[in-house]
Amino acid sequence: MWAIEKSKPEPGLWRIEAPIPTAGPKDVRIKVTAFAICGTDLHIVDWDRWAASRIKTPMVFGHEFTGVVESIGAEVKLVQVGDRVTGETHIYDGLCYACRRGLQHLCENVQILGVDRQGAFADYVVLPEQNVWKIHPDIPEEIAAIHDPLGNAVHTALAGPVAGLRFSVFGCGPIGCFAIGVLKAAGAAWVAAVDKNPPPARDRRAHGRGPDPERGAGTGREADPGCHERPRRGRHAGDVRPSRRLPRRIRIPGERGRVSLLGIPSKPLEIDVAKEVIFRGAQVQGINGRLIFDTWYRMEALLTSGKLDVRPVLTHILGWSDFEEAVELQRSGRAGRSS
Amino acid sequence: MWAIEKSKPEPGLWRIEAPIPTAGPKDVRIKVTAFAICGTDLHIVDWDRWAASRIKTPMVFGHEFTGVVESIGAEVKLVQVGDRVTGETHIYDGLCYACRRGLQHLCENVQILGVDRQGAFADYVVLPEQNVWKIHPDIPEEIAAIHDPLGNAVHTALAGPVAGLRFSVFGCGPIGCFAIGVLKAAGAAWVAAVDKNPPPARDRRAHGRGPDPERGAGTGREADPGCHERPRRGRHAGDVRPSRRLPRRIRIPGERGRVSLLGIPSKPLEIDVAKEVIFRGAQVQGINGRLIFDTWYRMEALLTSGKLDVRPVLTHILGWSDFEEAVELQRSGRAGRSS
Amino acid sequence: MWAIEKSKPEPGLWRIEAPIPTAGPKDVRIKVTAFAICGTDLHIVDWDRWAASRIKTPMVFGHEFTGVVESIGAEVKLVQVGDRVTGETHIYDGLCYACRRGLQHLCENVQILGVDRQGAFADYVVLPEQNVWKIHPDIPEEIAAIHDPLGNAVHTALAGPVAGLRFSVFGCGPIGCFAIGVLKAAGAAWVAAVDKNPPPARDRRAHGRGPDPERGAGTGREADPGCHERPRRGRHAGDVRPSRRLPRRIRIPGERGRVSLLGIPSKPLEIDVAKEVIFRGAQVQGINGRLIFDTWYRMEALLTSGKLDVRPVLTHILGWSDFEEAVELQRSGRAGRSS
Amino acid sequence: MWAIEKSKPEPGLWRIEAPIPTAGPKDVRIKVTAFAICGTDLHIVDWDRWAASRIKTPMVFGHEFTGVVESIGAEVKLVQVGDRVTGETHIYDGLCYACRRGLQHLCENVQILGVDRQGAFADYVVLPEQNVWKIHPDIPEEIAAIHDPLGNAVHTALAGPVAGLRFSVFGCGPIGCFAIGVLKAAGAAWVAAVDKNPPPARDRRAHGRGPDPERGAGTGREADPGCHERPRRGRHAGDVRPSRRLPRRIRIPGERGRVSLLGIPSKPLEIDVAKEVIFRGAQVQGINGRLIFDTWYRMEALLTSGKLDVRPVLTHILGWSDFEEAVELQRSGRAGRSS
Repeated sequence: MWAIEKSKPEPGLWRIEAPIPTAGPKDVRIKVTAFAICGTDLHIVDWDRWAASRIKTPMVFGHEFTGVVESIGAEVKLVQVGDRVTGETHIYDGLCYACRRGLQHLCENVQILGVDRQGAFADYVVLPEQNVWKIHPDIPEEIAAIHDPLGNAVHTALAGPVAGLRFSVFGCGPIGCFAIGVLKAAGAAWVAAVDKNPPPARDRRAHGRGPDPERGAGTGREADPGCHERPRRGRHAGDVRPSRRLPRRIRIPGERGRVSLLGIPSKPLEIDVAKEVIFRGAQVQGINGRLIFDTWYRMEALLTSGKLDVRPVLTHILGWSDFEEAVELQRSGRAGRSS
Repeated sequence: MWAIEKSKPEPGLWRIEAPIPTAGPKDVRIKVTAFAICGTDLHIVDWDRWAASRIKTPMVFGHEFTGVVESIGAEVKLVQVGDRVTGETHIYDGLCYACRRGLQHLCENVQILGVDRQGAFADYVVLPEQNVWKIHPDIPEEIAAIHDPLGNAVHTALAGPVAGLRFSVFGCGPIGCFAIGVLKAAGAAWVAAVDKNPPPARDRRAHGRGPDPERGAGTGREADPGCHERPRRGRHAGDVRPSRRLPRRIRIPGERGRVSLLGIPSKPLEIDVAKEVIFRGAQVQGINGRLIFDTWYRMEALLTSGKLDVRPVLTHILGWSDFEEAVELQRSGRAGRSS
Repeated sequence: MWAIEKSKPEPGLWRIEAPIPTAGPKDVRIKVTAFAICGTDLHIVDWDRWAASRIKTPMVFGHEFTGVVESIGAEVKLVQVGDRVTGETHIYDGLCYACRRGLQHLCENVQILGVDRQGAFADYVVLPEQNVWKIHPDIPEEIAAIHDPLGNAVHTALAGPVAGLRFSVFGCGPIGCFAIGVLKAAGAAWVAAVDKNPPPARDRRAHGRGPDPERGAGTGREADPGCHERPRRGRHAGDVRPSRRLPRRIRIPGERGRVSLLGIPSKPLEIDVAKEVIFRGAQVQGINGRLIFDTWYRMEALLTSGKLDVRPVLTHILGWSDFEEAVELQRSGRAGRSS
Repeated sequence: MWAIEKSKPEPGLWRIEAPIPTAGPKDVRIKVTAFAICGTDLHIVDWDRWAASRIKTPMVFGHEFTGVVESIGAEVKLVQVGDRVTGETHIYDGLCYACRRGLQHLCENVQILGVDRQGAFADYVVLPEQNVWKIHPDIPEEIAAIHDPLGNAVHTALAGPVAGLRFSVFGCGPIGCFAIGVLKAAGAAWVAAVDKNPPPARDRRAHGRGPDPERGAGTGREADPGCHERPRRGRHAGDVRPSRRLPRRIRIPGERGRVSLLGIPSKPLEIDVAKEVIFRGAQVQGINGRLIFDTWYRMEALLTSGKLDVRPVLTHILGWSDFEEAVELQRSGRAGRSS
């Protein structure tokens, strides 16, 4: 079969011919029909420090995908051949201390698809049944292909009460734009979007369901439709920070506010704990992955009920042969997600 | 001043001339500009068993109102003369065991406006500063006049997670219709409305933001646009039951679902605790009043952000002289709220 | 092998010779070294309505046990031959809507050991690895044999805040006595025990770590060391009701109190919802099984740290040949747990 | 009356003659019978940067005290002349956004006794009724005098589940020692105490109910009875950090653990957010003051039930004339609390 591989421990990507992966009695083999490129994939292509320390070559990478079940193991009950599926990319062991307490998304022995085991940039990918997600018939395949990052945003945004409260989203990449949509679908009274860079096209499109214009709840100039400015402190319930480029200093919103941190900041953060966390009685939450599968059910329901529309963030739909172009679009920041 | 009073312990209402109420150093005297009639007021007019046991005549009644501050006590800081205000009708003592743990809405010595002390169907009403709520400039007076029952609905609907979950509302009176709106504003994926009676005009109007039509999340026939039928069990996160006419038996939705009960059922309820509560790991919550003022802030934010529109439930706007007509409209079930 | 079976759909029990059960690649076969008799087992022996409707004969029953791993399937990683083990008796499918949201204890397709599949009153029992629990070396086998009902008590008692709060336990069977111990270990300031019957020997023994004597927190006569009386309402955080013989009416403790219901009341309960649940803002929780395995880890830690001592509730340790005697002791109410 | 004052903006303390403070209709005037010296008081004596920026001289300081009601305002209902009382030192306005949402301990306009208004190192102190706490008859005055810092410890330790979980306490000053006691009373399975300095006498005494010796739950060498070492990561539910001398780097305990931060670190903290917070799904909580009065009720119940004994931390009981000696003892680290 056709696959895209990191063949050697150096920058670059290789299109290869690979054997179709074998599957055990609890596994599902999936014909991949669409995929999307994540920031993680760029790290792998570029072979940065993180990639060099984590990836064992050769490795077919990629983890955001949609497909159709091609075959199932003898013990598989959840899906049948022909079902449209995607999957949770954190393959958990189910037996560690975290998994046994219901924290599969924090599994101590997690294997990530396309990072620790063969990924989805290929004709076929194999997942254990426990990680397979059957796609709702109303959800198109290009949306299903981004359930992984969208699930990150749902998990982060819904990690506390939202309805009738005010939020800022720091970092306006695709997950940040998803989070804006989820917060608004969940009844946030006001959402500010904050980013260092001027909003690219994708963000302006996202603004169809995007951050709120200047006039908040009668309080004057608060949000920045241009998406680069800080919101007023005060009656602010929380921050959502899906970003690798978190500012070095975190400022906390109003009393008992929450800051939900997602992503991988490259450096330690300096926090004025006394002023920002302790005196304000704040909650700082680390968010990792998605709740398996609680987040998925809520994501499906938000999508199929029409509460959440993420299409504006999907900027490019490309063909199979355009993989390198997709990588470049992604790298340039011009693309939200492409597949 | 002009007032509407329960003058004698018998059915009926009396329009009287009354002295303008006096106010202490922490009190606010309010010129009433609009009011609404609650089911409680009908009980008082009709002098039913509850009213006879609770009300000490003579009593000016009424508690849903809007007004303008006419004068303030020497120690009042929150409002100024001329401010548009309404108020929390549970006047709490702040010193009992419930209040001291932050449960002012469950105050052991609560005095309810228009029930235990002089109410708002009058030219002037007096409230302690602690109970006064300044109305946001974007909120019209007829909406402000129903902040009390709308707050009930907000408190009930937001008593657990909502976004991406499925709900049924049992009882389609005004509070039930408000609850439908709040659930939808908060991202409920699907809301069914259930009532014994065919939906009156007010409900059909409420359906502008009303319960969901037949097609839920791809699961076939589940909701009843006609609002009299039971939803399917299963993937159901919760029930909201703002009704005096709760069915004698409660059935619980899906595993770990919540049932949030508001209102005053006239009889004890029979619950198949083993089947409905224990085996399903369910949560049954009693909801009383509104969180003071957490619910109010979230209500204000939902209204001013445009997430929640309750105008369809306001069926009649009448003049001062039409009080008896308003009472009759309310009694007939043809009116949602009138003022 | 030797086993105790419900061979025919009628009252009684049969000692039989049975084949040693076979085990698949993810299964663990366990040599049973001790077991305990649950109320459920008495229902099966007596063949009451519940048993007749649920059990398919022939069925080896029993589910409270300790054992030693005799063999493991090829894919088993968690335990090795010779390990001391017991198990979670709710065998969950891991794929249903409840399981996929982390509610394995509420699995829609649950199979209960000794009820829906071959049980533990036998030389050998087979469990899937996912349900096996390795016993801490400091925990003796007779305590390990009752992890199932003790887990019920831990799950119920810890279903809300406990430290510095006041509780009543309704129903002083073994699980009720366990719950008293767990509440006290978790810092409950005061625990009343309530039962219709005079306390049998086991309860008096339990009182070593048992309910609190008359003098509560300076409030006069509140608890009943004799264990049959109702506690004062008021500053009361919650009730724990592990009983089949719940009173027909439930009264709720102080404002925002919780009532955690465990067990299988034989009839629907009548609840004065207005007075007891709604006006008090109460929480009624259905508790089923144990959190898999969050409850188990906390139970182990309470036992090994010496915070919880359940030995007084273990009234009789009998030999294998005394099974009928154990059943009679259990039925008579004279025994807490025997094995 | 006699008082201890910061008379001028420079290091030192002054014993003065002052007028007895006047009291309004909602105020309570208290004859002080015992007091304790807090770290805050040392800052005021030493006139460090924080003190210089916050305190307006002249100011009678001190906020940890016990007393007897000497007179009450006309509207006071909660206490009578002669009642033994202490008080919540955060005098909240009750009207700000934080207070109105039930977060009085985070009041935006808080006035702290002995910092922002006349304090308790005097013959008499005045508190508004809303802040007065009547002392339980079973609690001696020297314990009542430290309800403020003990409340900090109760609030911090009980800010999440405790029973059957494992904790570390970083910082073994008086509040740290209190927190150890509260965690153990609340059923913590294991508590490690961590401090830079060798444990002074007060800590060894605290060890009567102190941190756990080496052998935890069967896991080998984990705790440090000497109280200077780090616990093993892993099955660890949380950290409690009541310290001004937090390490510059925070390491988070096991998955979904909580870190509850109390105190005023003098510098911003550097946190490896990716590794410690995000990948571990951790919760970092800022804790300020005490819940008013939820924490107080639970503290009272823990004390009167005998679950919590804080006497070992009270190292010195001195006379009124020994104030300077008490300050020196406190400064030297040899004293836990003196009064």
